Amino acid sequence: MMSMNWPANIIFCEVGPRDGLQNEAAMLSLEQKIELIEGVAEAGVPIVEVGSFVNPKAVPQMADTDLVAKRIRRMPGVEYRCLVANKKGVERAVGAGISKVKLTLSASESHAKANLNKSISELLDGFTECVSYAREKKAEVSGAISTAFGCPFEGKIPVGRLVDITSRFISLGITELSLSDTTGMANPRQVYDTVSLMQDKFPDVRWFLHFHNTRGMALANITAGLNAGVIRYDASLAGLGGCPYAPGASGNVASEDVLHMLGEMGISTGVDLDMMIALAKRLRQWVGHPTDSFVLKAGKVSDLVAMTAAKKQPR
Amino acid sequence: MMSMNWPANIIFCEVGPRDGLQNEAAMLSLEQKIELIEGVAEAGVPIVEVGSFVNPKAVPQMADTDLVAKRIRRMPGVEYRCLVANKKGVERAVGAGISKVKLTLSASESHAKANLNKSISELLDGFTECVSYAREKKAEVSGAISTAFGCPFEGKIPVGRLVDITSRFISLGITELSLSDTTGMANPRQVYDTVSLMQDKFPDVRWFLHFHNTRGMALANITAGLNAGVIRYDASLAGLGGCPYAPGASGNVASEDVLHMLGEMGISTGVDLDMMIALAKRLRQWVGHPTDSFVLKAGKVSDLVAMTAAKKQPR
Repeated sequence: MMSMNWPANIIFCEVGPRDGLQNEAAMLSLEQKIELIEGVAEAGVPIVEVGSFVNPKAVPQMADTDLVAKRIRRMPGVEYRCLVANKKGVERAVGAGISKVKLTLSASESHAKANLNKSISELLDGFTECVSYAREKKAEVSGAISTAFGCPFEGKIPVGRLVDITSRFISLGITELSLSDTTGMANPRQVYDTVSLMQDKFPDVRWFLHFHNTRGMALANITAGLNAGVIRYDASLAGLGGCPYAPGASGNVASEDVLHMLGEMGISTGVDLDMMIALAKRLRQWVGHPTDSFVLKAGKVSDLVAMTAAKKQPR
Repeated sequence: MMSMNWPANIIFCEVGPRDGLQNEAAMLSLEQKIELIEGVAEAGVPIVEVGSFVNPKAVPQMADTDLVAKRIRRMPGVEYRCLVANKKGVERAVGAGISKVKLTLSASESHAKANLNKSISELLDGFTECVSYAREKKAEVSGAISTAFGCPFEGKIPVGRLVDITSRFISLGITELSLSDTTGMANPRQVYDTVSLMQDKFPDVRWFLHFHNTRGMALANITAGLNAGVIRYDASLAGLGGCPYAPGASGNVASEDVLHMLGEMGISTGVDLDMMIALAKRLRQWVGHPTDSFVLKAGKVSDLVAMTAAKKQPR
């Protein structure tokens, strides 16, 4: 009997305050954002993506990231990470006391053009000054490759494209990279093969995987990533995030669904699932609409057993 | 680089007309059921579970299975399968021209007691006369072990229980068995380990896997099953089926989500996905409420690319 390759523990990154909220029509108050981020850190999440420093006209939901980053009570040992697009973003991040910025690049020229009206090469060139400035200010820099497993304009992305972009990131000194399935197009076979190849080619990169549950495959893709040996995963509380190309579709895979599955599999996350579920419920109320979270709808596996056991008791 | 073990093709079984509809409040008309079953067979599905022959007082949605089974136009090469609980069920099945009956047994004493007020042993004893009668009438008999990966009353099911029940099924001459995650409690690690063990112990059994998406893990569980070498999967169009223990929760994993994922993975099913999506949409209208189907909400991966490509064309 073959046995599968499961890690003993993983590193969980909550991206709801950034990738979740940026796609929501409802704007959370500064206080709600702070409560969310502090709650996530209290639940034991080691990495929280607190927001992005981008043009507030393009992403109004993230306009107050400076204030959010300044006001949150920092938990020791927790990494507070922000997304940036250019040097101005890095300046704002450093000014707000953020010590890790994430530079995102699309694996697809069409997606890069549609989102930022620049070519991949132009964007990478712009990253050089971001990295120099961040280094000068002692801030760490990580990277993300969006539409890594498929682009809504171009379809499948050749793996060679990911290899090229990764090489460029590495030449900038960036060795922590996320492969992001921005519009939920990845499948588990592709994830396993792509991730195995990327790890083989770039053994010194710390890989994150970031899945959207647009077509229901996110947990299967995480399973494939685990099998390929990746131990860092992004997710968003309550499954916020939607998909700009498919209105009404599911967003980021829900943190509580990921943490619940990993818990059931005996893979340690260090995160308190019940605290995360309570936070996800509050967040769902704040955004004011149902979200695609299985655990919020059905409860944990262990809840079910406890509930039916209680019903069997004489009253 | 390790490579994963993916089969080139799988055998798909549509259980919507039985497991999907039996949990729906809305009753489909005889004509609708026939349209559904004939449509599924036309789409290329090789096995269709058309209904069950059980007490109509307990499951009124299945009261007309005799008529359904008699009236459907049979496609050559398609297996029309029905669930039965006792000899009377087999008699009705044979009378309606059904050539494959499925005997279901819970892996959990509490679940068996709650559902049928009998012990596992009593149920197995009753199966003897079912099998003799079916044999006499030249009908094939298969089996299913429900709550195989977890029971809402008892929690995790020891694998030894599955081994014992399988041995009993085999001693009755039944060598086609489904392991059913009736209330969506399975996780991919458990599925891989359980299924690998069961295949090792019983290499002559034709295994089916049957997952509910109650906690979002069904596609991950199918991925684990594929890796363990299982090639037969049940699913229900539109994701019908619900969960009697978690109102509002997702039901059977949606056929179109399974077929879409397998298609993206390059695993052949022989089923026309577009015809199944069209049928799932009709079925969703008939039951009159939204259902948990990702592909019905977000479309196929290839739709997205085609849609954005069309938008880029000058008008």
